[in-house]
Amino acid sequence: MKFYDCTTAPSPRRVRILMAEKGIEIDTVQVDLMKGEQLTEEFREINPLGQVPVLELDDGTRITEVMAICRYLEEIYPDNSLFGRDPVERAKVESINDQLQANGMVAVMEAFRNATPGFVDRAMPGPHNYEQIPALSERGLLRLDNFFSDLEAHLASNQYMVEDYFSIADITGFTVVEFARWVKKSIPDECSEVNRWYHQIKQRPSTAA
Amino acid sequence: MKFYDCTTAPSPRRVRILMAEKGIEIDTVQVDLMKGEQLTEEFREINPLGQVPVLELDDGTRITEVMAICRYLEEIYPDNSLFGRDPVERAKVESINDQLQANGMVAVMEAFRNATPGFVDRAMPGPHNYEQIPALSERGLLRLDNFFSDLEAHLASNQYMVEDYFSIADITGFTVVEFARWVKKSIPDECSEVNRWYHQIKQRPSTAA
Repeated sequence: MKFYDCTTAPSPRRVRILMAEKGIEIDTVQVDLMKGEQLTEEFREINPLGQVPVLELDDGTRITEVMAICRYLEEIYPDNSLFGRDPVERAKVESINDQLQANGMVAVMEAFRNATPGFVDRAMPGPHNYEQIPALSERGLLRLDNFFSDLEAHLASNQYMVEDYFSIADITGFTVVEFARWVKKSIPDECSEVNRWYHQIKQRPSTAA
Repeated sequence: MKFYDCTTAPSPRRVRILMAEKGIEIDTVQVDLMKGEQLTEEFREINPLGQVPVLELDDGTRITEVMAICRYLEEIYPDNSLFGRDPVERAKVESINDQLQANGMVAVMEAFRNATPGFVDRAMPGPHNYEQIPALSERGLLRLDNFFSDLEAHLASNQYMVEDYFSIADITGFTVVEFARWVKKSIPDECSEVNRWYHQIKQRPSTAA
């Protein structure tokens, strides 16, 4: 297999942390997003969407999208499960993970890309150019405030994102928190549960990935 | 089990189509989104996010988020699989489904909620109020044009969203196409592959759900 990565980007980082949790090593190709390598004709042959991560299988099949890659790796390396141990737990993991994606990851992305000079025409990732919408950046920052207060309530009754089970949802949540620094948002001091959870995750060696 | 639904809304529709494909019947409670029933104190006890669909299990566990509910139902009713028959096929289904969600479902939602008078303070679903951003509605319409042309290219080499395998991704795509009518976007005439695929799906009795 071959993994197309970019060490500075939050989306492939979720896959890297999962690989570290499972002790998987895969040949990795760095795609320099800062230089726009993801939009070159060469890379668009690999992923027409012009995005990382991509997982290339030995038969040439290419899997795009973070969660599709992560779940594929979970299936072929089932030890140290990260998607849940039974149907109900898997549903809980997927539900909170989707919320963290929509309300956390996307909010940071909107705040960042719609206000950063280098992204004037690139307010969204992918093959199409979209102009920045400054009001969308502001809304992203507002959404992050709500994200942290909602998370505080959730973590008051959960050790991890799903009860006492460490999962892919913790990897997503952790990545959101560190990505939020790009827009100068950190966990508010009054969110003691989020701070407790964050430091618990940060201790895991996988988060160095 | 109990299913909290709203017959006019696109998100729970995806679950209804899946249930029809699998021949599952579940006691259903209608939540009238037009009347704002999802935001009442009573319903917020059921889902603090103030959203449908919700699947309530017999032990009281409640599952939120469309894909978490759909995958749970797939696990307990595995006949007529809709998520793929092996790890690679499952990854392909999840990858395209996530793209249809991010580039189709979200684009229609942004176009619709940011321009409809009844949603002045409700530009996003969920517990928090956000003002409309007119430029985001315009961008949503633009994204839908790209959505259809990208889909045209994809379906030129796929009978369904993933090769010759009907899956949850077709349910998502079909729901996007019909939801797009809310913002007066229909499949462009020149997208013959998308039209071919749409009519193929439309023939399935499940799409009456």
